[in-house]
Amino acid sequence: MYLAKVYVTLKPTVNDPQGLTIKGALHNLGFASVEDVRAGKYIEVRVKESDPKKAHIQIDEMCRKLLANPVIENYRFDLEKA
Amino acid sequence: MYLAKVYVTLKPTVNDPQGLTIKGALHNLGFASVEDVRAGKYIEVRVKESDPKKAHIQIDEMCRKLLANPVIENYRFDLEKA
Repeated sequence: MYLAKVYVTLKPTVNDPQGLTIKGALHNLGFASVEDVRAGKYIEVRVKESDPKKAHIQIDEMCRKLLANPVIENYRFDLEKA
Repeated sequence: MYLAKVYVTLKPTVNDPQGLTIKGALHNLGFASVEDVRAGKYIEVRVKESDPKKAHIQIDEMCRKLLANPVIENYRFDLEKA
């Protein structure tokens, strides 16, 4: 059993209205030191797989096919035995 | 300048319809080995602050006040010099 921690972020050149909204809200709350906010997704996927290499290949395929949109998003993931 | 990488996850006892939907979609795509999926948020916050202790306190306050809902969500963050 492996647990993949997947991080999906917008590519740096892509506009991020959610991040801008969070930044505005933080400023309104008095956090004037906030320079920039980028919002992304964090997904934990648990797979029944004993071979870490196979698990890695599967998770990468899941990211490309469903979890991330490769046109506008980057993804990375850590794999740990669970 | 510090960059905080904030991870917000639903508490384990809280129902996660988004995670269940992703799990169903992965099964439909043929990833039968997927056991469980939990969806969360990943937020990068860049703060203009030279003291790491002060940055840590500020980010923690941002999490409690805006980024996470402490009733149903857990949060953690890493702080790195940027």
